Amino acid sequence: MARETTKGEETKAAILDRALALASLGGFEKLTIGTLAEALQMSKSGLFAHFGAKSELQLAVMRHGVDRFISHVIAPALKLPRGEPRLRALVDGWIRWDRDALPGGCPLQAAAAEYDDVEGPIRDYVVESQRDWFDTLTQVARAAIQAGALAADIDPRAFAFELSNILAGYRRHARLFREPDAESLTRSAFEALLARSRPRA
Amino acid sequence: MARETTKGEETKAAILDRALALASLGGFEKLTIGTLAEALQMSKSGLFAHFGAKSELQLAVMRHGVDRFISHVIAPALKLPRGEPRLRALVDGWIRWDRDALPGGCPLQAAAAEYDDVEGPIRDYVVESQRDWFDTLTQVARAAIQAGALAADIDPRAFAFELSNILAGYRRHARLFREPDAESLTRSAFEALLARSRPRA
Repeated sequence: MARETTKGEETKAAILDRALALASLGGFEKLTIGTLAEALQMSKSGLFAHFGAKSELQLAVMRHGVDRFISHVIAPALKLPRGEPRLRALVDGWIRWDRDALPGGCPLQAAAAEYDDVEGPIRDYVVESQRDWFDTLTQVARAAIQAGALAADIDPRAFAFELSNILAGYRRHARLFREPDAESLTRSAFEALLARSRPRA
Repeated sequence: MARETTKGEETKAAILDRALALASLGGFEKLTIGTLAEALQMSKSGLFAHFGAKSELQLAVMRHGVDRFISHVIAPALKLPRGEPRLRALVDGWIRWDRDALPGGCPLQAAAAEYDDVEGPIRDYVVESQRDWFDTLTQVARAAIQAGALAADIDPRAFAFELSNILAGYRRHARLFREPDAESLTRSAFEALLARSRPRA
Protein backbone atom coordinates (compact mmCIF):
# COMPACT_ATOMS: atom_id res chain seq x y z
CA MET A 1 0.00 0.00 0.00
CA ALA A 2 2.77 2.41 1.02
CA ARG A 3 4.75 1.26 -2.01
CA GLU A 4 1.92 1.97 -4.39
CA THR A 5 1.58 5.50 -3.03
CA THR A 6 5.29 6.06 -3.54
CA LYS A 7 5.08 4.89 -7.12
CA GLY A 8 2.07 7.11 -7.79
CA GLU A 9 3.91 10.07 -6.27
CA GLU A 10 6.99 9.36 -8.36
CA THR A 11 4.88 9.29 -11.52
CA LYS A 12 3.20 12.54 -10.54
CA ALA A 13 6.56 14.21 -9.80
CA ALA A 14 7.89 13.11 -13.20
CA ILE A 15 4.79 14.54 -14.90
CA LEU A 16 5.18 17.80 -12.98
CA ASP A 17 8.86 18.08 -13.96
CA ARG A 18 8.00 17.69 -17.62
CA ALA A 19 5.05 20.08 -17.38
CA LEU A 20 7.24 22.68 -15.66
CA ALA A 21 9.79 22.49 -18.48
CA LEU A 22 6.98 23.00 -21.02
CA ALA A 23 5.58 25.97 -19.06
CA SER A 24 9.04 27.54 -18.85
CA LEU A 25 9.13 27.60 -22.65
CA GLY A 26 5.54 28.37 -23.66
CA GLY A 27 3.94 29.89 -20.57
CA PHE A 28 1.24 28.47 -18.33
CA GLU A 29 -1.74 29.48 -20.47
CA LYS A 30 -0.82 26.98 -23.19
CA LEU A 31 -0.38 24.22 -20.60
CA THR A 32 -3.56 22.16 -20.76
CA ILE A 33 -4.43 18.54 -20.06
CA GLY A 34 -4.51 18.11 -23.85
CA THR A 35 -1.10 19.62 -24.68
CA LEU A 36 0.53 17.84 -21.73
CA ALA A 37 -1.00 14.47 -22.69
CA GLU A 38 0.41 14.92 -26.19
CA ALA A 39 3.88 15.89 -24.94
CA LEU A 40 4.01 12.96 -22.50
CA GLN A 41 2.26 10.51 -24.84
CA MET A 42 -0.14 9.73 -21.99
CA SER A 43 -3.91 9.47 -22.10
CA LYS A 44 -5.93 12.54 -21.13
CA SER A 45 -7.92 10.43 -18.69
CA GLY A 46 -4.70 9.41 -16.90
CA LEU A 47 -3.80 13.06 -16.44
CA PHE A 48 -7.32 14.00 -15.37
CA ALA A 49 -6.99 11.41 -12.59
CA HIS A 50 -3.92 13.28 -11.30
CA PHE A 51 -5.01 16.90 -11.79
CA GLY A 52 -8.66 17.38 -12.71
CA ALA A 53 -9.29 20.71 -14.44
CA LYS A 54 -6.81 22.88 -16.37
CA SER A 55 -6.49 25.47 -13.59
CA GLU A 56 -5.67 22.71 -11.05
CA LEU A 57 -2.95 21.44 -13.39
CA GLN A 58 -1.53 24.96 -13.80
CA LEU A 59 -1.51 25.58 -10.05
CA ALA A 60 0.06 22.18 -9.33
CA VAL A 61 2.84 22.90 -11.83
CA MET A 62 3.43 26.37 -10.36
CA ARG A 63 3.62 24.93 -6.84
CA HIS A 64 6.08 22.32 -8.10
CA GLY A 65 8.20 25.13 -9.62
CA VAL A 66 8.17 27.09 -6.36
CA ASP A 67 9.15 23.96 -4.40
CA ARG A 68 12.10 23.42 -6.72
CA PHE A 69 13.10 27.10 -6.46
CA ILE A 70 13.06 26.87 -2.65
CA SER A 71 15.21 23.69 -2.73
CA HIS A 72 17.64 25.02 -5.33
CA VAL A 73 17.99 28.69 -4.36
CA ILE A 74 16.55 29.64 -0.97
CA ALA A 75 17.31 26.64 1.25
CA PRO A 76 21.06 26.45 0.42
CA ALA A 77 21.45 30.22 0.97
CA LEU A 78 19.72 30.13 4.36
CA LYS A 79 22.24 27.50 5.53
CA LEU A 80 25.08 30.01 5.08
CA PRO A 81 25.99 32.77 7.56
CA ARG A 82 23.87 35.93 7.37
CA GLY A 83 25.44 38.87 5.56
CA GLU A 84 27.43 38.67 2.34
CA PRO A 85 27.71 34.85 2.13
CA ARG A 86 23.92 34.48 2.20
CA LEU A 87 23.34 37.38 -0.21
CA ARG A 88 25.92 36.05 -2.66
CA ALA A 89 24.42 32.57 -2.49
CA LEU A 90 20.99 33.98 -3.38
CA VAL A 91 22.41 35.82 -6.40
CA ASP A 92 24.48 32.80 -7.55
CA GLY A 93 21.52 30.49 -7.01
CA TRP A 94 19.12 32.77 -8.87
CA ILE A 95 21.40 33.09 -11.91
CA ARG A 96 21.93 29.31 -12.01
CA TRP A 97 18.17 28.79 -11.63
CA ASP A 98 17.20 31.10 -14.50
CA ARG A 99 20.10 29.94 -16.68
CA ASP A 100 20.28 26.17 -16.14
CA ALA A 101 17.35 24.68 -14.22
CA LEU A 102 14.72 24.80 -16.98
CA PRO A 103 14.90 25.24 -20.75
CA GLY A 104 12.99 28.55 -20.74
CA GLY A 105 14.24 30.04 -17.49
CA CYS A 106 12.19 30.87 -14.40
CA PRO A 107 8.56 30.05 -15.24
CA LEU A 108 7.19 32.03 -12.30
CA GLN A 109 8.86 35.22 -13.45
CA ALA A 110 7.31 34.74 -16.90
CA ALA A 111 3.94 34.02 -15.26
CA ALA A 112 4.14 37.37 -13.45
CA ALA A 113 3.83 39.17 -16.80
CA GLU A 114 1.33 36.61 -18.12
CA TYR A 115 -1.15 36.94 -15.24
CA ASP A 116 -0.68 40.42 -13.78
CA ASP A 117 -4.05 41.55 -15.20
CA VAL A 118 -5.94 38.24 -15.11
CA GLU A 119 -7.93 38.00 -11.85
CA GLY A 120 -8.30 34.58 -10.26
CA PRO A 121 -6.55 31.89 -8.24
CA ILE A 122 -3.59 31.68 -10.63
CA ARG A 123 -2.84 35.40 -10.33
CA ASP A 124 -3.26 35.10 -6.55
CA TYR A 125 -0.71 32.31 -6.40
CA VAL A 126 1.77 34.13 -8.67
CA VAL A 127 1.52 37.26 -6.50
CA GLU A 128 1.91 35.22 -3.31
CA SER A 129 4.99 33.38 -4.54
CA GLN A 130 6.65 36.52 -5.99
CA ARG A 131 5.95 38.39 -2.76
CA ASP A 132 7.47 35.51 -0.77
CA TRP A 133 10.63 35.84 -2.86
CA PHE A 134 10.70 39.63 -2.42
CA ASP A 135 10.12 39.24 1.34
CA THR A 136 12.95 36.70 1.52
CA LEU A 137 15.31 39.23 -0.10
CA THR A 138 14.10 41.92 2.33
CA GLN A 139 14.62 39.59 5.32
CA VAL A 140 18.10 38.56 4.16
CA ALA A 141 19.01 42.25 3.75
CA ARG A 142 17.67 42.99 7.26
CA ALA A 143 19.74 40.14 8.71
CA ALA A 144 22.81 41.46 6.87
CA ILE A 145 22.27 44.87 8.50
CA GLN A 146 21.94 43.25 11.91
CA ALA A 147 25.13 41.28 11.26
CA GLY A 148 26.94 44.53 10.41
CA ALA A 149 27.55 43.49 6.79
CA LEU A 150 25.33 46.29 5.43
CA ALA A 151 25.17 49.85 6.81
CA ALA A 152 22.66 50.50 9.60
CA ASP A 153 20.89 53.23 7.59
CA ILE A 154 20.08 50.93 4.65
CA ASP A 155 16.33 50.45 4.07
CA PRO A 156 16.03 46.65 3.63
CA ARG A 157 12.98 47.02 1.35
CA ALA A 158 14.76 49.52 -0.93
CA PHE A 159 17.75 47.13 -0.99
CA ALA A 160 15.45 44.22 -1.94
CA PHE A 161 13.86 46.38 -4.66
CA GLU A 162 17.26 47.09 -6.18
CA LEU A 163 18.42 43.49 -5.88
CA SER A 164 15.27 41.98 -7.41
CA ASN A 165 15.45 44.56 -10.23
CA ILE A 166 19.03 43.52 -10.99
CA LEU A 167 18.03 39.83 -11.08
CA ALA A 168 15.11 40.57 -13.40
CA GLY A 169 17.55 42.51 -15.61
CA TYR A 170 19.62 39.35 -15.95
CA ARG A 171 16.65 37.61 -17.54
CA ARG A 172 16.10 40.44 -20.04
CA HIS A 173 19.73 40.56 -21.18
CA ALA A 174 20.34 36.78 -21.10
CA ARG A 175 17.05 35.33 -22.35
CA LEU A 176 15.59 38.13 -24.46
CA PHE A 177 18.68 39.89 -25.85
CA ARG A 178 20.92 36.76 -25.59
CA GLU A 179 23.89 38.96 -24.81
CA PRO A 180 27.07 37.09 -23.89
CA ASP A 181 27.90 39.58 -21.11
CA ALA A 182 24.47 39.41 -19.41
CA GLU A 183 25.94 37.63 -16.40
CA SER A 184 28.87 40.02 -15.96
CA LEU A 185 26.55 43.04 -16.33
CA THR A 186 24.34 41.54 -13.61
CA ARG A 187 27.20 40.63 -11.28
CA SER A 188 28.80 44.07 -11.68
CA ALA A 189 25.51 45.76 -10.75
CA PHE A 190 25.22 43.49 -7.70
CA GLU A 191 28.82 44.20 -6.61
CA ALA A 192 28.16 47.94 -6.98
CA LEU A 193 24.99 47.60 -4.87
CA LEU A 194 26.97 45.74 -2.17
CA ALA A 195 29.87 48.21 -2.29
CA ARG A 196 27.64 51.25 -1.74
CA SER A 197 25.61 49.47 0.96
CA ARG A 198 28.49 48.39 3.22
CA PRO A 199 29.09 50.29 6.49
CA ARG A 200 31.30 53.35 5.95
CA ALA A 201 34.63 52.92 7.77
CA MET B 1 -9.62 59.43 -53.52
CA ALA B 2 -7.33 61.05 -50.96
CA ARG B 3 -10.31 61.39 -48.64
CA GLU B 4 -11.11 57.70 -48.85
CA THR B 5 -7.54 56.79 -47.91
CA THR B 6 -7.72 59.05 -44.87
CA LYS B 7 -10.94 57.45 -43.73
CA GLY B 8 -9.48 53.98 -44.21
CA GLU B 9 -6.41 54.97 -42.22
CA GLU B 10 -8.53 56.42 -39.44
CA THR B 11 -10.52 53.20 -39.21
CA LYS B 12 -7.32 51.18 -39.13
CA ALA B 13 -5.83 53.39 -36.39
CA ALA B 14 -9.00 53.02 -34.30
CA ILE B 15 -8.84 49.23 -34.71
CA LEU B 16 -5.17 49.21 -33.73
CA ASP B 17 -5.87 51.32 -30.61
CA ARG B 18 -8.52 48.89 -29.47
CA ALA B 19 -6.37 45.85 -30.29
CA LEU B 20 -3.45 47.34 -28.35
CA ALA B 21 -5.65 47.82 -25.28
CA LEU B 22 -6.76 44.18 -25.54
CA ALA B 23 -3.14 42.98 -25.92
CA SER B 24 -2.09 45.04 -22.91
CA LEU B 25 -4.57 43.05 -20.80
CA GLY B 26 -4.41 39.54 -22.26
CA GLY B 27 -1.11 39.38 -24.14
CA PHE B 28 -0.50 39.13 -27.87
CA GLU B 29 -0.95 35.37 -28.19
CA LYS B 30 -4.69 35.62 -27.46
CA LEU B 31 -5.06 38.43 -30.01
CA THR B 32 -6.47 36.82 -33.13
CA ILE B 33 -8.65 38.00 -36.00
CA GLY B 34 -11.49 36.09 -34.28
CA THR B 35 -11.15 37.60 -30.78
CA LEU B 36 -10.62 41.08 -32.19
CA ALA B 37 -13.67 40.80 -34.49
CA GLU B 38 -15.75 39.80 -31.48
CA ALA B 39 -14.45 42.65 -29.31
CA LEU B 40 -15.02 45.23 -32.07
CA GLN B 41 -18.26 43.66 -33.33
CA MET B 42 -16.78 43.71 -36.80
CA SER B 43 -16.80 40.97 -39.42
CA LYS B 44 -13.74 38.75 -39.63
CA SER B 45 -13.53 39.42 -43.35
CA GLY B 46 -13.32 43.19 -42.69
CA LEU B 47 -10.36 42.62 -40.38
CA PHE B 48 -8.70 40.20 -42.81
CA ALA B 49 -8.82 42.97 -45.41
CA HIS B 50 -6.78 45.19 -43.06
CA PHE B 51 -4.34 42.66 -41.60
CA GLY B 52 -4.32 39.26 -43.27
CA ALA B 53 -2.96 36.52 -41.02
CA LYS B 54 -2.79 36.45 -37.21
CA SER B 55 0.96 37.11 -37.09
CA GLU B 56 0.53 40.19 -39.33
CA LEU B 57 -2.15 41.49 -36.98
CA GLN B 58 0.09 40.90 -33.95
CA LEU B 59 3.04 42.66 -35.59
CA ALA B 60 0.87 45.60 -36.73
CA VAL B 61 -0.45 46.03 -33.18
CA MET B 62 3.07 45.85 -31.71
CA ARG B 63 4.32 48.45 -34.20
CA HIS B 64 1.38 50.67 -33.29
CA GLY B 65 2.31 50.30 -29.60
CA VAL B 66 5.93 51.22 -30.28
CA ASP B 67 4.82 54.26 -32.32
CA ARG B 68 2.66 55.45 -29.44
CA PHE B 69 5.52 54.83 -26.97
CA ILE B 70 7.87 56.93 -29.10
CA SER B 71 5.31 59.77 -29.32
CA HIS B 72 4.39 59.67 -25.63
CA VAL B 73 7.74 58.95 -23.97
CA ILE B 74 10.80 59.29 -26.18
CA ALA B 75 10.00 62.27 -28.45
CA PRO B 76 9.03 64.70 -25.62
CA ALA B 77 12.17 63.76 -23.66
CA LEU B 78 14.47 64.31 -26.63
CA LYS B 79 13.13 67.86 -26.97
CA LEU B 80 14.48 68.70 -23.51
CA PRO B 81 18.11 69.62 -22.74
CA ARG B 82 20.48 66.68 -22.35
CA GLY B 83 21.38 65.67 -18.79
CA GLU B 84 18.93 65.52 -15.89
CA PRO B 85 15.92 67.17 -17.63
CA ARG B 86 15.98 64.53 -20.38
CA LEU B 87 16.58 61.64 -17.96
CA ARG B 88 13.78 62.79 -15.66
CA ALA B 89 11.41 63.17 -18.61
CA LEU B 90 12.11 59.57 -19.67
CA VAL B 91 11.37 58.29 -16.16
CA ASP B 92 8.22 60.42 -15.78
CA GLY B 93 7.05 59.45 -19.26
CA TRP B 94 7.68 55.76 -18.66
CA ILE B 95 5.77 55.69 -15.39
CA ARG B 96 2.83 57.56 -17.00
CA TRP B 97 2.97 55.18 -19.96
CA ASP B 98 2.87 52.00 -17.87
CA ARG B 99 0.32 53.46 -15.40
CA ASP B 100 -2.13 55.39 -17.60
CA ALA B 101 -1.76 54.84 -21.34
CA LEU B 102 -3.30 51.37 -21.58
CA PRO B 103 -5.49 49.31 -19.24
CA GLY B 104 -2.89 46.56 -18.74
CA GLY B 105 0.30 48.61 -18.84
CA CYS B 106 3.11 48.41 -21.37
CA PRO B 107 2.21 45.58 -23.78
CA LEU B 108 5.74 45.33 -25.18
CA GLN B 109 7.23 44.67 -21.75
CA ALA B 110 4.69 41.89 -21.25
CA ALA B 111 5.48 40.55 -24.74
CA ALA B 112 9.15 40.30 -23.77
CA ALA B 113 8.29 37.56 -21.25
CA GLU B 114 5.69 36.02 -23.58
CA TYR B 115 8.03 35.58 -26.57
CA ASP B 116 11.56 35.31 -25.16
CA ASP B 117 11.69 31.60 -26.06
CA VAL B 118 9.43 31.58 -29.13
CA GLU B 119 11.55 31.90 -32.29
CA GLY B 120 10.09 33.87 -35.20
CA PRO B 121 9.30 37.33 -36.52
CA ILE B 122 7.36 38.35 -33.41
CA ARG B 123 10.26 37.56 -31.08
CA ASP B 124 12.59 39.38 -33.50
CA TYR B 125 10.43 42.49 -33.37
CA VAL B 126 10.10 42.39 -29.57
CA VAL B 127 13.88 42.09 -29.22
CA GLU B 128 14.46 44.91 -31.71
CA SER B 129 12.05 47.29 -29.99
CA GLN B 130 13.29 46.49 -26.47
CA ARG B 131 16.89 46.93 -27.64
CA ASP B 132 15.95 50.28 -29.19
CA TRP B 133 14.58 51.38 -25.81
CA PHE B 134 17.70 50.14 -24.01
CA ASP B 135 19.95 51.86 -26.57
CA THR B 136 17.97 55.10 -26.13
CA LEU B 137 18.60 54.97 -22.37
CA THR B 138 22.30 54.28 -23.02
CA GLN B 139 22.52 57.19 -25.47
CA VAL B 140 20.74 59.59 -23.11
CA ALA B 141 23.14 58.55 -20.32
CA ARG B 142 26.12 59.13 -22.66
CA ALA B 143 24.80 62.59 -23.55
CA ALA B 144 24.35 63.37 -19.84
CA ILE B 145 28.02 62.45 -19.24
CA GLN B 146 29.10 64.68 -22.12
CA ALA B 147 26.97 67.51 -20.70
CA GLY B 148 28.69 67.09 -17.31
CA ALA B 149 25.47 66.02 -15.58
CA LEU B 150 26.82 62.52 -14.85
CA ALA B 151 30.37 61.70 -13.79
CA ALA B 152 32.89 61.05 -16.56
CA ASP B 153 33.72 57.58 -15.22
CA ILE B 154 30.12 56.32 -15.44
CA ASP B 155 29.65 53.43 -17.88
CA PRO B 156 26.55 54.50 -19.87
CA ARG B 157 25.54 50.87 -20.52
CA ALA B 158 25.75 49.97 -16.81
CA PHE B 159 23.71 53.13 -16.07
CA ALA B 160 21.08 52.09 -18.65
CA PHE B 161 21.00 48.57 -17.14
CA GLU B 162 20.29 50.03 -13.68
CA LEU B 163 17.71 52.48 -15.00
CA SER B 164 15.80 49.94 -17.09
CA ASN B 165 15.84 47.53 -14.12
CA ILE B 166 14.30 50.21 -11.90
CA LEU B 167 11.56 50.91 -14.47
CA ALA B 168 10.78 47.20 -14.79
CA GLY B 169 10.58 47.07 -10.98
CA TYR B 170 7.85 49.71 -11.12
CA ARG B 171 5.72 47.36 -13.17
CA ARG B 172 6.21 44.47 -10.73
CA HIS B 173 5.28 46.52 -7.66
CA ALA B 174 2.48 48.55 -9.30
CA ARG B 175 0.81 45.99 -11.60
CA LEU B 176 1.60 42.66 -9.97
CA PHE B 177 1.77 43.52 -6.25
CA ARG B 178 -0.55 46.57 -6.58
CA GLU B 179 1.39 48.32 -3.84
CA PRO B 180 0.37 51.93 -3.21
CA ASP B 181 4.00 53.02 -2.79
CA ALA B 182 5.27 51.43 -6.04
CA GLU B 183 5.85 54.84 -7.60
CA SER B 184 7.69 56.31 -4.61
CA LEU B 185 9.85 53.16 -4.34
CA THR B 186 10.71 53.56 -8.04
CA ARG B 187 11.39 57.31 -7.85
CA SER B 188 13.56 56.88 -4.75
CA ALA B 189 15.65 54.26 -6.52
CA PHE B 190 16.02 56.59 -9.53
CA GLU B 191 17.02 59.56 -7.33
CA ALA B 192 19.60 57.35 -5.58
CA LEU B 193 20.98 56.27 -8.96
CA LEU B 194 21.23 59.92 -10.07
CA ALA B 195 22.78 61.03 -6.76
CA ARG B 196 25.57 58.44 -6.91
CA SER B 197 26.18 59.07 -10.63
CA ARG B 198 26.69 62.87 -10.48
CA PRO B 199 30.23 64.26 -10.78
CA ARG B 200 31.99 64.37 -7.40
CA ALA B 201 32.64 67.99 -6.33
